[in-house]
Amino acid sequence: MAFTDLSIAMDAKMLPIQEIAERAGIPGEALEQYGNYKAKINVDLLPPAENLGKVVLVTAISPTPAGEGKSTVTVGLADALKQLEESVMVALREPSLGPVMGVKGGATGGGFAQVLPMEDINLHFTGDIHAITSANNALAAFIDNHLHQGNALNIDPRRITWKRALDINDRALREVTIGLGGPAQGVPRQDGFDITVASEIMAVLCLATSLEDLKERLSLMVVGYTYQKEPVMVRDLGVEGALALLLKDAFKPNLVQTIEGTPAIIHGGPFANIAHGCNSLIATQTARRLADVVVTEAGFGADLGAEKFMHIKSRKGDFHPDAVVVVATVRALKMHGGIVKTELAEANHEAVRRGMVNLAKHVDTIRQFGIEPVVALNRFVTDTDAELAEIFSWAEAEGVQVALTNVWEQGGKGGLELAKLVLQEMERPKDFVRLYDETDSVEEKLRTIVQKVYGGADIQLTDAAQKQLAELKKFGWDELPICMAKTQYSLSDQPKLLGRPEGFTITVREIMPKLGAGFLVCLTGDIMTMPGLPKQPAALKMDVGADGKAIGLF
Amino acid sequence: MAFTDLSIAMDAKMLPIQEIAERAGIPGEALEQYGNYKAKINVDLLPPAENLGKVVLVTAISPTPAGEGKSTVTVGLADALKQLEESVMVALREPSLGPVMGVKGGATGGGFAQVLPMEDINLHFTGDIHAITSANNALAAFIDNHLHQGNALNIDPRRITWKRALDINDRALREVTIGLGGPAQGVPRQDGFDITVASEIMAVLCLATSLEDLKERLSLMVVGYTYQKEPVMVRDLGVEGALALLLKDAFKPNLVQTIEGTPAIIHGGPFANIAHGCNSLIATQTARRLADVVVTEAGFGADLGAEKFMHIKSRKGDFHPDAVVVVATVRALKMHGGIVKTELAEANHEAVRRGMVNLAKHVDTIRQFGIEPVVALNRFVTDTDAELAEIFSWAEAEGVQVALTNVWEQGGKGGLELAKLVLQEMERPKDFVRLYDETDSVEEKLRTIVQKVYGGADIQLTDAAQKQLAELKKFGWDELPICMAKTQYSLSDQPKLLGRPEGFTITVREIMPKLGAGFLVCLTGDIMTMPGLPKQPAALKMDVGADGKAIGLF
Repeated sequence: MAFTDLSIAMDAKMLPIQEIAERAGIPGEALEQYGNYKAKINVDLLPPAENLGKVVLVTAISPTPAGEGKSTVTVGLADALKQLEESVMVALREPSLGPVMGVKGGATGGGFAQVLPMEDINLHFTGDIHAITSANNALAAFIDNHLHQGNALNIDPRRITWKRALDINDRALREVTIGLGGPAQGVPRQDGFDITVASEIMAVLCLATSLEDLKERLSLMVVGYTYQKEPVMVRDLGVEGALALLLKDAFKPNLVQTIEGTPAIIHGGPFANIAHGCNSLIATQTARRLADVVVTEAGFGADLGAEKFMHIKSRKGDFHPDAVVVVATVRALKMHGGIVKTELAEANHEAVRRGMVNLAKHVDTIRQFGIEPVVALNRFVTDTDAELAEIFSWAEAEGVQVALTNVWEQGGKGGLELAKLVLQEMERPKDFVRLYDETDSVEEKLRTIVQKVYGGADIQLTDAAQKQLAELKKFGWDELPICMAKTQYSLSDQPKLLGRPEGFTITVREIMPKLGAGFLVCLTGDIMTMPGLPKQPAALKMDVGADGKAIGLF
Repeated sequence: MAFTDLSIAMDAKMLPIQEIAERAGIPGEALEQYGNYKAKINVDLLPPAENLGKVVLVTAISPTPAGEGKSTVTVGLADALKQLEESVMVALREPSLGPVMGVKGGATGGGFAQVLPMEDINLHFTGDIHAITSANNALAAFIDNHLHQGNALNIDPRRITWKRALDINDRALREVTIGLGGPAQGVPRQDGFDITVASEIMAVLCLATSLEDLKERLSLMVVGYTYQKEPVMVRDLGVEGALALLLKDAFKPNLVQTIEGTPAIIHGGPFANIAHGCNSLIATQTARRLADVVVTEAGFGADLGAEKFMHIKSRKGDFHPDAVVVVATVRALKMHGGIVKTELAEANHEAVRRGMVNLAKHVDTIRQFGIEPVVALNRFVTDTDAELAEIFSWAEAEGVQVALTNVWEQGGKGGLELAKLVLQEMERPKDFVRLYDETDSVEEKLRTIVQKVYGGADIQLTDAAQKQLAELKKFGWDELPICMAKTQYSLSDQPKLLGRPEGFTITVREIMPKLGAGFLVCLTGDIMTMPGLPKQPAALKMDVGADGKAIGLF
């Protein structure tokens, strides 16, 4: 029988979560168990930290649709650091049920570099995303109830920007009309559903520093505009307390373990396009209170997740990564070298050579922040020596540090070389800089990201976006960081422009104020905030045995 | 400061859930903790039971909109039985978030007769209802994806009967159109949302006897019809395994405690109109394995919850209640005596006398099943001696056992008299009979319920219902019990016809096959499967303190 992620996970021997907590220095009274292998951490009951641990950020080159194994490398790197006797924790995002049931199976790493219990983490886990769905839709119901009950705030039903949300892939809910059926059934209007991880509430939960801060951020969320085009916020409806109440447990970080018994915090999972794509700030900061080294990741390629980690998450948390790992695969490099998806398994070292430009750009980007990245070459069985040689000769020529990793097959052992390079890099003094200031104009901030991070020439705002920008300035909302919503497949806003495109212009077609999250989402291209299911959803293979064990989760 | 349910609950000293489990005879390995005061029970790991405990069913007269305190009496009665040194457990339904945020506050009993931790139980609890929401909407997404991806099953988009669901009060979602926005966004069609507790999946979870049975029932759910008007079931889509996987933890009963430390199982919460309104069968049967006496309740008045307990739940479980408590209040009796809602607090013993007819009917109904009921008169501070005297003189004349209860104020002590009557009644030999057989024709089953339980004259089926009935017969679905969907306020199908109406006809306007649940829902009057919010939702008073404690949940 072939190994699958699920079979490996099920054969793994887990330690009781109390034991993991003890290893992490979490006192019993701060632990709220969810079953025997999951727990929430009550951070108010943790002992004060003398100093905070260092942060290793794992990012990637522009990915293939299958992903390059960033979570797997993150977990494997942490387990390798543990083997080197470092005090280490992992901080990851929570998987969304939509992609799990749709395409992906799970999102908990793979092979012998997984977080456990993978079944639970991939299904409902500790209910955080469900709590966000509840809060998101409670708010929507409060808005529509307000319209129905006399509309004292004078909200324009055509200008409600708050959408409903479900943690599911369901294209039929992207555009809907609601409130049909006559006067007893509410006010008819156009609406739509996003996947829950695209809800601003997810971003809020991931950037809040305390329950009070969470409530304050919720109160600032813009839900729509009046007939006089004045913004309407949650605080105008007076329901931030109820929303915070619904989120009080979801806000507590979740403790689990890697397959090698390394403590892992898995908490929050915002989209990496419409939002900032990193686990919660409170998870990262809690891990830093508990361990000397925290390995964490940011979604998609370095142009998206890492850029936002630098400009949004770490800015809010007032820290910076002490090392950055850029994950690359031979497969993705070949794709950037012009090979189509169906032929990626065939040996082709020239394509690898051509594709190196994409990795080179992401390496340059990280260097601009004042950090020398370490490239993790995530090995696949189909990789040939000639292909790997291309990468090493490029790395030598460019002075880039590269480590081969084989954590899927070997766990931490397969990441030891990477871990040693990361430790060296962590110790090196660095001059961290952010590429823009929040006080720069929106156009300047956008241009900085496009030119320095994407390697493009310029930006262009559609008429609609220009109008929105004028509004933002009028309301004084322009001094916020930018959260770009862009395709992950290309450095540009065109998914098929692979490799390292140059001279392109990024078109911003919409600017959405997310005052609760504290950023301005700039939409480029066609960004999907509610995915669809494929013709044969992954769910068709899923089942549960009479013994209660999951079948076909992968 | 006045006592509130929340303040009493928060001041209560809870025992660790392991201790409650130990009291109940649940071995440690069968316990899955959710925090320190909640746990799921893995019933497969319970020791075999030598015999099953007796069942006390708590039901009520036709209620006022505020309810008559049925859950409160259920909890208080169990605590009283414990004070009398009986081995006792409570089995209750899980509260739905919709009403909690809307009107009701919580649904965990009241005063000194509550289940704890009330905050958690009233909010997300152990996530069961969220899992049902996920499964319900995953199924909806699979259906719409099937339409979008070529519609191999030839499903008629106009005849899809499966609706989406959210655990919320949201009238604007009752009637919607989905799939708008062009060919990439699915197939446009009319749709609607129910509150999750009205989902057939909730009924399925509450009637399944094992995980295998759960999956079998899910596979039988009808989701719509083809263009040839043939039924389409979940098994045709092949997703019953995925749905069961999503529900595998939700299917495990939840253990909590009453304020006096009596073990309580709270699990499942189907609507008492569109569904059968009882906690899960597996919860009741698990409690019976663990205790000599199980006190459980059924929703609304005896015409709804108790009738369905007798004909649906206990039939599936092959048992019958050993005693039945009918909860009445002076307030409700006055309402049935013709007093309007705003004047119920004023003394009026003549109105009580006139209103006795409603209670008398419910007492007669229970007697028809071969059980002599005990009336629990749930005392309020506004009750006068003259009002109470009316009830006792009626009871003496009719030979009905009545106990005054004051469990809100006194906990178990306030229910001792009731408990003693119940224990006597439990021991009396009885000749339990169900009023209809599943093999009776649908019309006969309906007529039996209307004449014997509601005290009406006859039934009438609309043309639409007759057509549906003909279809049901054609498919061989008519030998299932009936699940009446009727107003709870009247014995008839007209909410304003209080007291004990006679000679009325019940109009059935729709018959819905629920093959997974295993019953036929017969809709009468205007039954709401998605409630709306009031002008001032309860949520406006809710908040959470910086210490993480709930505020204004009641």
